[in-house]
Amino acid sequence: MTDEPTGLWLIGARGSVATTAISGLLALRAGLTPPTGCVTERPEFAGVPLPGWADLVVGGHDVVDTPLVKRAEQLADSGVLPHRLLGAITDRLHAADAEVRPGYHPVTHRGSQAEAAGRLAADITGFRERHGLARVVVVNVSSTEPPVPATPEHDDLAALEEALADPTRAVLPPSSVAAYAALTAGCPFVDFTPSTGIALPALDELARRERLPYAGRDGKTGETLLRTVLAPMFTARALRVRSWAGTNLLGGGDGATLEDPAHADSKLESKARGLAALLGDGVTAPLHIDNVPDLGEQKTAWDHVSFEGFLGARMSLQLTWTGLDSSLAAPLVLDLARLVAAAHAAGQVGALGALAFFFKDPLGSDEHRFAEQARELYRWAGELT
Amino acid sequence: MTDEPTGLWLIGARGSVATTAISGLLALRAGLTPPTGCVTERPEFAGVPLPGWADLVVGGHDVVDTPLVKRAEQLADSGVLPHRLLGAITDRLHAADAEVRPGYHPVTHRGSQAEAAGRLAADITGFRERHGLARVVVVNVSSTEPPVPATPEHDDLAALEEALADPTRAVLPPSSVAAYAALTAGCPFVDFTPSTGIALPALDELARRERLPYAGRDGKTGETLLRTVLAPMFTARALRVRSWAGTNLLGGGDGATLEDPAHADSKLESKARGLAALLGDGVTAPLHIDNVPDLGEQKTAWDHVSFEGFLGARMSLQLTWTGLDSSLAAPLVLDLARLVAAAHAAGQVGALGALAFFFKDPLGSDEHRFAEQARELYRWAGELT
Amino acid sequence: MTDEPTGLWLIGARGSVATTAISGLLALRAGLTPPTGCVTERPEFAGVPLPGWADLVVGGHDVVDTPLVKRAEQLADSGVLPHRLLGAITDRLHAADAEVRPGYHPVTHRGSQAEAAGRLAADITGFRERHGLARVVVVNVSSTEPPVPATPEHDDLAALEEALADPTRAVLPPSSVAAYAALTAGCPFVDFTPSTGIALPALDELARRERLPYAGRDGKTGETLLRTVLAPMFTARALRVRSWAGTNLLGGGDGATLEDPAHADSKLESKARGLAALLGDGVTAPLHIDNVPDLGEQKTAWDHVSFEGFLGARMSLQLTWTGLDSSLAAPLVLDLARLVAAAHAAGQVGALGALAFFFKDPLGSDEHRFAEQARELYRWAGELT
Amino acid sequence: MTDEPTGLWLIGARGSVATTAISGLLALRAGLTPPTGCVTERPEFAGVPLPGWADLVVGGHDVVDTPLVKRAEQLADSGVLPHRLLGAITDRLHAADAEVRPGYHPVTHRGSQAEAAGRLAADITGFRERHGLARVVVVNVSSTEPPVPATPEHDDLAALEEALADPTRAVLPPSSVAAYAALTAGCPFVDFTPSTGIALPALDELARRERLPYAGRDGKTGETLLRTVLAPMFTARALRVRSWAGTNLLGGGDGATLEDPAHADSKLESKARGLAALLGDGVTAPLHIDNVPDLGEQKTAWDHVSFEGFLGARMSLQLTWTGLDSSLAAPLVLDLARLVAAAHAAGQVGALGALAFFFKDPLGSDEHRFAEQARELYRWAGELT
Ligand SMILES: NC(=O)c1ccc[n+]([C@@H]2O[C@H](COP(=O)([O-])OP(=O)(O)OC[C@H]3O[C@@H](n4cnc5c(N)ncnc54)[C@H](O)[C@@H]3O)[C@@H](O)[C@H]2O)c1
Ligand SMILES: NC(=O)c1ccc[n+]([C@@H]2O[C@H](COP(=O)([O-])OP(=O)(O)OC[C@H]3O[C@@H](n4cnc5c(N)ncnc54)[C@H](O)[C@@H]3O)[C@@H](O)[C@H]2O)c1
Ligand SMILES: NC(=O)c1ccc[n+]([C@@H]2O[C@H](COP(=O)([O-])OP(=O)(O)OC[C@H]3O[C@@H](n4cnc5c(N)ncnc54)[C@H](O)[C@@H]3O)[C@@H](O)[C@H]2O)c1
Ligand SMILES: NC(=O)c1ccc[n+]([C@@H]2O[C@H](COP(=O)([O-])OP(=O)(O)OC[C@H]3O[C@@H](n4cnc5c(N)ncnc54)[C@H](O)[C@@H]3O)[C@@H](O)[C@H]2O)c1
Ligand code: NA
Ligand code: NA
Repeated sequence: MTDEPTGLWLIGARGSVATTAISGLLALRAGLTPPTGCVTERPEFAGVPLPGWADLVVGGHDVVDTPLVKRAEQLADSGVLPHRLLGAITDRLHAADAEVRPGYHPVTHRGSQAEAAGRLAADITGFRERHGLARVVVVNVSSTEPPVPATPEHDDLAALEEALADPTRAVLPPSSVAAYAALTAGCPFVDFTPSTGIALPALDELARRERLPYAGRDGKTGETLLRTVLAPMFTARALRVRSWAGTNLLGGGDGATLEDPAHADSKLESKARGLAALLGDGVTAPLHIDNVPDLGEQKTAWDHVSFEGFLGARMSLQLTWTGLDSSLAAPLVLDLARLVAAAHAAGQVGALGALAFFFKDPLGSDEHRFAEQARELYRWAGELT
Repeated sequence: MTDEPTGLWLIGARGSVATTAISGLLALRAGLTPPTGCVTERPEFAGVPLPGWADLVVGGHDVVDTPLVKRAEQLADSGVLPHRLLGAITDRLHAADAEVRPGYHPVTHRGSQAEAAGRLAADITGFRERHGLARVVVVNVSSTEPPVPATPEHDDLAALEEALADPTRAVLPPSSVAAYAALTAGCPFVDFTPSTGIALPALDELARRERLPYAGRDGKTGETLLRTVLAPMFTARALRVRSWAGTNLLGGGDGATLEDPAHADSKLESKARGLAALLGDGVTAPLHIDNVPDLGEQKTAWDHVSFEGFLGARMSLQLTWTGLDSSLAAPLVLDLARLVAAAHAAGQVGALGALAFFFKDPLGSDEHRFAEQARELYRWAGELT
Repeated sequence: MTDEPTGLWLIGARGSVATTAISGLLALRAGLTPPTGCVTERPEFAGVPLPGWADLVVGGHDVVDTPLVKRAEQLADSGVLPHRLLGAITDRLHAADAEVRPGYHPVTHRGSQAEAAGRLAADITGFRERHGLARVVVVNVSSTEPPVPATPEHDDLAALEEALADPTRAVLPPSSVAAYAALTAGCPFVDFTPSTGIALPALDELARRERLPYAGRDGKTGETLLRTVLAPMFTARALRVRSWAGTNLLGGGDGATLEDPAHADSKLESKARGLAALLGDGVTAPLHIDNVPDLGEQKTAWDHVSFEGFLGARMSLQLTWTGLDSSLAAPLVLDLARLVAAAHAAGQVGALGALAFFFKDPLGSDEHRFAEQARELYRWAGELT
Repeated sequence: MTDEPTGLWLIGARGSVATTAISGLLALRAGLTPPTGCVTERPEFAGVPLPGWADLVVGGHDVVDTPLVKRAEQLADSGVLPHRLLGAITDRLHAADAEVRPGYHPVTHRGSQAEAAGRLAADITGFRERHGLARVVVVNVSSTEPPVPATPEHDDLAALEEALADPTRAVLPPSSVAAYAALTAGCPFVDFTPSTGIALPALDELARRERLPYAGRDGKTGETLLRTVLAPMFTARALRVRSWAGTNLLGGGDGATLEDPAHADSKLESKARGLAALLGDGVTAPLHIDNVPDLGEQKTAWDHVSFEGFLGARMSLQLTWTGLDSSLAAPLVLDLARLVAAAHAAGQVGALGALAFFFKDPLGSDEHRFAEQARELYRWAGELT
C-alpha cells in the first residue's frame, strides 16, 4: 500500500496540534524540514509499507472559522513554527482551509445526533471521493471534553443507535459522535485526546462489525512520557517510590480548556491511571494542571519523585520539562495516520494495542512501560505487509 | 549452588560503599530491613540459583584503620544508615573488622608488585579456607584512581608477569594489582569503580586462562543511570538532543578523591563514553564533578538537556537527582556478588557483558540502553542453573 | 529589662514548631548549639534590651497528650533535631511537659466561650505567678484553622463579650479564644499561624484597652520568604512578572491539616495577598499545597516565575526550596518572644508593624518587601530601651 | 540638561548587547515598545534630569564588519528581538552602521598604543562634533578579555603614558586602550564587561585630572543578580550558607569567548569576589561557565545553595535562571548612558560607586547587597540636578 493516496481527517482541524501537523506535513512534502520528531522515519520502520508524505491529503472538522494561516502565524510567534517557513507554505495552507468543514457542536446543532453523525460522515466520504483516496484516517485532536457519565446505551450498539435517532437526546459527547461518524463512513479512527471518543463498548462493537481498526487515547508527549520511561527504572532497581507529585503549567488553547476543572478531570484521570499501572497503589501522587496564559504554547511540567532505597534511605528526583506541546504532538499525529492506514490496509480490526507507545491511556493494551511499548511497536510494524 | 557458603571480599572494605554493604548485609540477614534496592530480590530472579544473604561471608582489604563501627556511625549521621539499626549490628560489625587486612599501597610497599599480589592473594585464600567457602567474589570499591598511561606490558600476560617481578617497577595501578591477585587466587572479580582494575588485555588473558568470570566497571547509580534511561526515549521519539550538560556536587570520601582533577578524569571519561554511545557524536556535553564537603554522603546532580523537535522547535528537560550514593551502590555490590558467584558456579568465563545493567562503562558489552540491559540481564539470569 | 524572667506560653505546645522551639531553647541555654537561625542574635540587635535564653521559661496549651520527649524523638528521626542532643535535654523536656495544660477545643468544651477563655487565662496567670515572671508572651503555633465567616461581633468588643457569655454560641474560632484569653490575662500575643487569632477589630480594641502589644501573622519561613525577597528585584529592574506559579509539598502535622482544603484556604489567602501587594494585580499566580506524608517534616516548594524584559523578551526563573519547616520556624518563635517582651516592657501598644519581617501577612503594616522590613525592624529595635 | 543631545559610543558596537541596545533605543524612540527593563523609567527617577530617548545618538567601535541589520536578524531568530520590529527599524539600523568605526585590535595594529588611542579618540570627537553633542558617554560592551598581569605602569599615569608611546610595547589590554582614548577625548566611560578597562590606578588618575566620571564593572544581569538579592536574606535570617555551587550554560558570542578558560577567568573572578563579599569566606563555591552553542542567546544558570539552620538542620535552595542575556543587558546599557551623562553634566568625577546596583564588581563601592545598592542609587539620583 506504500504509495496509495491516503486521507488524514482532523477533528479540531484549526487547533494548535492540527495546524502544526498540517504545516509540518506541507513542509516535509516540500523538503523544507527534516522529519525530527517523526517516529515512523526512524530506521526501525524502514521497509514498513507506510504512505509517504506526498500521499497524504488533509481535511477536517472544526467549530471555529479562524483561517489556518492565521493560526500558523500565532504558532510562529510562539516558537512552534519557524517564521521563515510560513511564507513558503501560505498558499498550500489556504488550499487546506478549503477542506475544513463545520464540526458538530451540541449548542448549535438541531435535530438528532444520528443526523449530525450522518452529516459528518458525508463530509468525510465526499472528501475521500473528491481526492480518490484509498482510505481516510480520522484523528481526533479537538478540545478535551469533561468526563461523561456512563449510560447503558454506551455498552450496546443497537441501544445506542436507537438513542442517537431520538432528537430529544444527546447520548454521546461530540468526540464520540465524531468517532461514530468516522466508523459509519468506513474510516479507522485515532483518539489523540483524553475525551471519551471511541472508548465505549458500543463503538468497539461498531468498529468490529465494520472491520475497522482504531487507536487511542491521549497522546503521550510530556510529563507522562517521562513517567513511563522513569517509573520502570525505579522498579527495575528495586527502589520504592513513595510519592510522585506533578504540576503542569500550560497556556494555549489546551490551557484555557483545562482551566475548567471539569475538563481537566479527563486529563488527570488518564494520567493517574498510568502511574498506578506502573508503580502500583500506595504512591502519593498529587497532580495539578494550571492555565498560565503567558506561557503560550509552552508547557512546563515539574515532577518531584521521592523514593526510598537500601536501609530506608530517602532520596529524590526532580524534573522540569519545558516543551512546546504542539511540536511534540504534531509529528505523532502524522505517524499515527500512517501506521493506522497501514493497519487498515493490512485488514487489522479493533483496538490497536501495539500503538500504546503513543498514548497515555492505551486502548487495547495494559502496557505502560515505554521501552516495552517501543519493542511491541517495532515488532508489530515489522509484521505489516 | 544456592546454599553454598560464599565469600565477598571488598577492596576498600572500610569505605562508604563497603561499610554500607556490610551493614546492610548484616541487617538483611537478621531480617531487620526489607531488601529495598536489591535487584536480585525482584521477581525476575525467583528461581535463579543465587547464594542467600545467610550464605555470604565478608572480608576485605583497606589501607586505613578506621573501625567499621566508626564508619557506620558517620554514615548514620549522614542519613545512610538508620541510627536505630546500629545498636543491633555493632557486635557483628566488630567481627567483620577482624577479616579486614591491610591493602596494597605503592607508597608504603617495598619489593616487587608480584610480592604484593602474592600477599593479597594469600589473604584471600586464607579467608576462603578459614570459612570453608565454595568461592570468593572479590569486589573493588576502593578510591577512584587517576587514568593510567598504557604500556605494552598491559597487553600481554607474559610481559606483564615479567614486569611485576621487577622490584624497580610499578607497572600496575593498585586496582589492577588487586585484580591480578584475585585471579591468581582463583577468584572472580568485580570492578565497581572507574579505575583500570581488570580492564587490561593481559588480565583478561589471565581470567580466561584461569577460567574465571569478571564484571565491571563503575557502578551506575545516579546521573548516568538516568541518562541511560532517558537518552533512548529521545532516540525512540526521533527527537534530536543538542546538548546534555551535567554538574555533580558530592561530598564524602569520593568527593574528596574526585576533587583532584586527575582522579575525576577516570569518572568523567567513563561518563562521556556512555553518552556518546547512546546519542552519537555532535552532542555538546560539558560535565563537572565538584567536591562540596558539607553535602556529606549526598550527591546532587543537575542535568540540562536541550533538544530539538518537529520543525526545529527548541525544548529542554532539567533533572535534579538527590541521592545517597552509598545507599544506591551498596545493594548493587551485594547483587553483583551473588550474580558473579552464580556465574562462576555455572562455569562462565571472561567479561560478563550481561551485567551491563549495573555499570557506567560495561565490560564485555556495548549496550548502554537501560531497558535493553535489563532485558539481557533477566535473560542471562534465567539461563543460570 | 534585659534580665527579667520572662514566660513564653505556646498555644499548640506539643506541635512540631513548639517542640523544636522548646528543645532549641534548652540547647541554647545549655550552650549545646550555636544560635543559627536566631535573628535576635545578629549584630544588629547587640545592645537591644532583650531577655536572655536563660531568662525564658516555657509553658503552653495543647489538645493532645503526646509527651514532648516523644515528639522530639520523631523530630530527630526527621532530621530536625540532632539525635545526640536528645539525651542531653531529656530531663528538661520532661520538666517542660509539666507546664503544658489542656487547650480549648470546641468539640470537648461545655459551657460558654467566656468560661473557656477564663480557664485559659487562669492557666497563664498561674504560670506567671508560679515562676515569678515579669511578663508572659503568648505565641500561637497551633494547627491552622479554616477561614472564619465575619460576624458583627468581631468588630465590636462589647458585642463580642456579650456573645462570648452566651453558652449556646461559639462566636470565636479557638485561635481567637486563645488571643482573647491572653489579653485578658494581661499578656502580649503573637500569632505565628494564618488563623484568625487576634486579627479582629474587637480584639485590637481589647489590646489597646489593656495597653498590650501584639504581632502577627503567619510566620514567613519558605516560599513566601523567597517571594518577598525576589519580587522587589523584578520591580527594581523594571522587569514585568507575568506569572508566578507555586506548588508546596509538605508532610508532618501541618501537611495533614492543610490536606483539608478548608484549612489550606487560610494559608493560600495569606500567600496570595502578599504576592499581589508586591507585584500588583495581573500576575497569574496558581498556588497549591499538597500533603505528601513521606516527606515528613521536610517542605519542598517549587516556584516558576515567568517574566518579560526589554522588547518583550520572555524569560523565567525556577526555585526549589527544600526546608525543614520547624527548623525555620522555631528560632523565629524565640525571636518573637524576646522582641515582643521588650516591646511590652517599653510600653508599646497594638499591632507591632515593625515585626512585618517575620510574617507572611503582617498586622499593622503594608510592607511586604523583605529588605525594607529588615531595615524597619532594625530601626525599631534600635529605639527600644 | 534633560534635553541636551547626548552621544552613546559603544565599544563592541556590533555585538549582541550593543545591537540589542541600539535596536531597542530605535524602538523606544519610535514608541514601538514599552520601556520594560529600563530602570531609569521607574517612578524613582521621575524628575531626575536625564537625556530622553530622542536625545541619544549612537556610534561605536568594533573589529568586525557584520552589518547591524544582519546581527539584528540573528537576534530575532534567537528570541531577543521581535521579528515584526525589524522591518520598522531597518533603515535606522543602516544609518547607525554608518557611525561604527574600526576598533583597536593588537593583532592588526601597527605603531604605538598612543597612536591607536589617538585614532580612537579622534573617532569619538569627530562623532561629537558632527552631531553637535553636549557629551558622549563611552560604554565598553566588547568581548571579555583574559585577566591581565599587573605592571608598575598601571599604577602611575606618567609612567603609563611613556610606555604607551613606545611602539615596541603593548602595555594595556584593548579595553584599557579604549578607556584611555575615551578619557583623553573628554568622555565619561562605563565598563559593562569584566575586562580590565578603566580599573587601573593610572586611568583613575587620568579621569580625575580630566574631571570625568566613570562606572563599572561587569553588568549584573543573571546569576549574580540573584545572588546579591538572596545572600542578604540568608544573612538577615541568621542562616549559615555552607556551599553555593553554580553552573552557567551559554551560547552566543559571549559563550564562544568564555569557552576559552583564560577569558572565563575574568568573569569567574568577578563573580567569586561578589559572593565572598556577601557571605564571607568559608563558603564552598564551585562555579562553571560552559559554552553550549545550541542555546543561542539564552543563558541558563543553575545554582545550588546548601545552608544550615537551627540546631544544625540541613536545607537547600535551587535556582534555575533562564534569561536572554542581551535582553537583560541592553536596557541597562541605555540606563547607564543616561545616568553617567547626568553625572557628567552635574560635574561628578571619578568612580561612581552609587551605580553599584548595575555591576557584579562595582568600582568605587564595596556594597554588593542589591537592596542597599538600590537605595543608594535612588538617593544619588535624587540629588542630581
Ligand atoms: N502535546 C499535545 O499537544 C497533546 C497531547 C495529548 C493530547 N492532546 C490533546 O489534543 C487536543 C488538541 O490540543 P490543542 O492544543 O490543539 O488544542 P486547541 O484548543 O488549540 O485546539 C482544539 C480545536 O478543537 C476544536 N474543537 C472544539 N470542539 C470541537 C468539535 N466539537 N468539533 C470539531 N472541532 C472542535 C476547537 O475549535 C479547536 O480549534 C486536546 O484535547 C489535547 O488535550 C494534545
Ligand atoms: N554510588 C556510588 O557510591 C558509586 C558509584 C559508582 C562507583 N563508585 C566507586 O566506588 C568507590 C568507593 O566509593 P566510596 O564512596 O565508598 O569511597 P570512600 O572514599 O568512602 O572509600 C574508598 C575506600 O578505599 C580505600 N582504599 C584506597 N586505596 C586503597 C587500596 N589501594 N587498597 C585497598 N583500599 C583502598 C580507602 O581507604 C577507603 O576506605 C569509588 O571508586 C567510587 O568512584 C561508587
Ligand atoms: N515554617 C513553619 O513551620 C510555619 C510557618 C508559618 C506558620 N506555621 C504555622 O504554625 C502552626 C504549627 O505548625 P506545626 O508544623 O507545628 O503543626 P503541628 O500540627 O505539628 O502542631 C500543631 C499543634 O497544635 C495543637 N492544637 C490544635 N488545636 C489546638 C487548640 N485548639 N489548642 C491548643 N493546641 C491545639 C495540635 O494538637 C498540635 O500539637 C501551623 O498553623 C502552621 O501553619 C508554621
Ligand atoms: N547580560 C549580558 O549580556 C552581559 C552581562 C555582563 C557583561 N556582559 C559583557 O558584555 C560584553 C559583550 O557581550 P556580548 O554578548 O554582546 O558579546 P558579543 O561577542 O556578541 O559582542 C562583543 C563584540 O565586541 C567586539 N570586539 C571584540 N574585541 C573588540 C575590540 N578590541 N574593539 C572593539 N570591539 C571589539 C566583537 O567583534 C563583538 O562584536 C562581554 O564582555 C560580556 O561579558 C554581558
Ligand atoms: Na489500556
Ligand atoms: Na498588613
